[in-house]
Amino acid sequence: MSKIATIVGGGVIGGGWAARFLLNGWDVRIFDPDPQAERKIGEVLDNARRALPGLTDVALPTEGALTFHDDLAEAVAGAAWIQESVPEQLPLKQKVFAQIQAACDPGAVIGSSTSGFKPSELQAGAAWVGQIVVTHPFNPVYLLPVVELVTSPDNPAELVARAADTLTSIGMYPLHLKKEIDAHVADRLLEAVWREALWLVKDEIATTEEIDNAIRYGFGIRWAQMGLFETYRIAGGEAGMRHFMAQFGPALKWPWTKLMDVPEFTEDLVDLIADQSDAQSGAYSIRELERIRDTNLVGMMRALKAQNWGAGELLNAQDGRLKSGSVLGARAGEIADVSQPIVTLRRAVPLDWTDYNGHMTEFRYLEAFASASDRFMELVGADADYIASGGSYFTAESHIRHIDELHAGALFTIHTRVLLGQGKKMHLFHEMRAGDRLIATGEHFLLHVSLESRRPSDPSAEIQAALERIATAHAALPLPEGAGRFVGQPR
Amino acid sequence: MSKIATIVGGGVIGGGWAARFLLNGWDVRIFDPDPQAERKIGEVLDNARRALPGLTDVALPTEGALTFHDDLAEAVAGAAWIQESVPEQLPLKQKVFAQIQAACDPGAVIGSSTSGFKPSELQAGAAWVGQIVVTHPFNPVYLLPVVELVTSPDNPAELVARAADTLTSIGMYPLHLKKEIDAHVADRLLEAVWREALWLVKDEIATTEEIDNAIRYGFGIRWAQMGLFETYRIAGGEAGMRHFMAQFGPALKWPWTKLMDVPEFTEDLVDLIADQSDAQSGAYSIRELERIRDTNLVGMMRALKAQNWGAGELLNAQDGRLKSGSVLGARAGEIADVSQPIVTLRRAVPLDWTDYNGHMTEFRYLEAFASASDRFMELVGADADYIASGGSYFTAESHIRHIDELHAGALFTIHTRVLLGQGKKMHLFHEMRAGDRLIATGEHFLLHVSLESRRPSDPSAEIQAALERIATAHAALPLPEGAGRFVGQPR
Repeated sequence: MSKIATIVGGGVIGGGWAARFLLNGWDVRIFDPDPQAERKIGEVLDNARRALPGLTDVALPTEGALTFHDDLAEAVAGAAWIQESVPEQLPLKQKVFAQIQAACDPGAVIGSSTSGFKPSELQAGAAWVGQIVVTHPFNPVYLLPVVELVTSPDNPAELVARAADTLTSIGMYPLHLKKEIDAHVADRLLEAVWREALWLVKDEIATTEEIDNAIRYGFGIRWAQMGLFETYRIAGGEAGMRHFMAQFGPALKWPWTKLMDVPEFTEDLVDLIADQSDAQSGAYSIRELERIRDTNLVGMMRALKAQNWGAGELLNAQDGRLKSGSVLGARAGEIADVSQPIVTLRRAVPLDWTDYNGHMTEFRYLEAFASASDRFMELVGADADYIASGGSYFTAESHIRHIDELHAGALFTIHTRVLLGQGKKMHLFHEMRAGDRLIATGEHFLLHVSLESRRPSDPSAEIQAALERIATAHAALPLPEGAGRFVGQPR
Repeated sequence: MSKIATIVGGGVIGGGWAARFLLNGWDVRIFDPDPQAERKIGEVLDNARRALPGLTDVALPTEGALTFHDDLAEAVAGAAWIQESVPEQLPLKQKVFAQIQAACDPGAVIGSSTSGFKPSELQAGAAWVGQIVVTHPFNPVYLLPVVELVTSPDNPAELVARAADTLTSIGMYPLHLKKEIDAHVADRLLEAVWREALWLVKDEIATTEEIDNAIRYGFGIRWAQMGLFETYRIAGGEAGMRHFMAQFGPALKWPWTKLMDVPEFTEDLVDLIADQSDAQSGAYSIRELERIRDTNLVGMMRALKAQNWGAGELLNAQDGRLKSGSVLGARAGEIADVSQPIVTLRRAVPLDWTDYNGHMTEFRYLEAFASASDRFMELVGADADYIASGGSYFTAESHIRHIDELHAGALFTIHTRVLLGQGKKMHLFHEMRAGDRLIATGEHFLLHVSLESRRPSDPSAEIQAALERIATAHAALPLPEGAGRFVGQPR
């Protein structure tokens, strides 16, 4: 088959499909009578080109060719995949399928992005029903992997398998439903939450923001890595899913939601769920699942922390509270004794800093040393406000020695020596210790730069003065062991 | 007030509360007649000590003292916070409150972990109703920040404010509900999804695993960083929330769920939601929200990738497909020409690799160089199977020079030179280029180690042979510029 995908209907969903195919090396043809289609698709592509290529740890294939077509027949001729994303009106969709089928390859897959219609409804009246399937993606299509693949008995197995393979090849996860149903699976869950949330707003229990916070500071983070059932399996403890259902089963009869049409918790249903849960998660003990969950949560929450968003924003606020009043929150003028190396970091090794060797992985040492440099910059006045005003320090050169190992949870401290602090130059030497054990050293040469010209420039007079005060005091200390080493130098 | 918290009822939730308080420097007293309580709480504490301290970028306070008590009166005397987490039976909870109030400080907060009961129900018949509030947390309590604070008109404002401050001080986000309601907010949403999901399993549309995948490969990741309403605001595009509601409002009448009791979409309700959404997210344009969302998603998905879990497992599988058949998937024997530096990495800069200076941040250079070293190890045979068999390479020393900048999305390649490959020693020199631009160099000295003894040891004969073959070929190349430099060396 060709590697040509035709996108019928632009907009956010069609544009997302276009981006997914294009960035995975397919040629993409767009058909959309909207005169704004090219601009809209271009905007989605801008977002996708910003986000998707770096998500993989391997370069994506060369982008395919993107073309816009006024003629649907021309657009679909010879395409291996045709994705329909027109508005959610059944007669409109059926009309579009008729036009597509008049010109497309009979072996092509015609996928519909419909949120709610069943494939049998889409297929009704089609020239050849077998090639029309539901392939329902989630926004942003270029990042989120799940796509609901819904078929009817009229779809040949070969075509369904080929559709699944194609979706997998562009980095998606085709979830093939066992039976067709209105709104498929994910949108039914979303619709249930949406309806309940509307009641909560209408009844003035909570605002939209409070409801969003209830989600993103809580079960939303859990659901990003395990879903509903695996999470509840853990909640059931060692007794597992059956215990959870026994415990929370009665709540099905309680008015915990306005949505009261519930299945009866028969023994058959309990067995079905418990058995499926065993098949899904039984390879891990509850303790193992707890630890996998926690490591995932820590990794994701730390990712959000770097963006100062959601749960990460809360963590940064908590860090601020922990720092205030401590040496890690002080300014240079408040440090009485600058004759000794300065504490610039005191923290524990996060769960997501370890590697396949079971210890803190090498690049996290530089992350810790870079945090220590940041803290030192802040101490002499090169803080967030100063950086916003256009000056900063860039690291020109670094040298790290690994002397001992650290494991997750280990508490360590970094002490910082100034070896040179003069004009635009700042030469720092960090020592990382866990208790008395020297773990690593980091030697760094930084240059003050103008963030506009990206060229070296002098820092403010205040920073120069603060830096020189410490540099002068530290000059009286003996040169630290290991300073000035090169890689491979005999000890 | 004292910094003493009393936990009444151990188990997973009580244990989580104990861990949160203890690791934030509070003394914690446990009352639970279960003879297994000490073991159970100990297990939760083990998990918490593994996960929480590294979540903050600042060391937590010194842990408080943990004590177990057989006498409830003794346990609660003088405590500032008493947290009840006994089973979900109203008369039992009321009885426990009576016993607590017979001995506790009248100024203490008594928080209930109830999932469903309203504070007015808990307070009924209490000696002093004002000190009993709902503080409903989410598992794992030591990591997830949200706690629903539900009060009745009988709770004094001073006590409610103090409860909120205390929860904030231990890193939580108190969501204070405007009114009490059965099951509060988050559990109503969860209950709606649970009920709908039970139907999907019962009707054999999807298995528990498929439903979990529909969540964690899709909207679950979105919800970890924005909730329902902010996500839908983006879906509405520049026209925002009102447009979304106009578009998807009709679906409220459709059978997209079995749960059909829905509020009517009156103009008042549309206005209420649109106005609340403006207040919540109006500071950002839709384009800004899209980019914040994408950066968050990329960061979280990459965090999951490092754990090879959920969406991250899918991404790793896709990386494998992208590598296969390329130079990045080959073994040493398959590389015909080893006379030149070897391509060990070709990738784009991920969104989460940039910093406040707007470029790739320094520790990500070492991450890239470490990936290149890993790939080189794999190439000579020190792959995942070899590491599992007990041998690996540890980096002893690294030197990085920053020569030019890289921004998010930029494609770069690393070429690797072997400067020494002899016995247990491996000295590598990486050059990072974007097109013809030299961006950075990384010089690394690695030692082969036994993962059991953690001491240097010789690699397998196969690895030695493969390494020496390349080292010998590379020895004919001129020494790369910058090799052997020390930090601060004049150019």
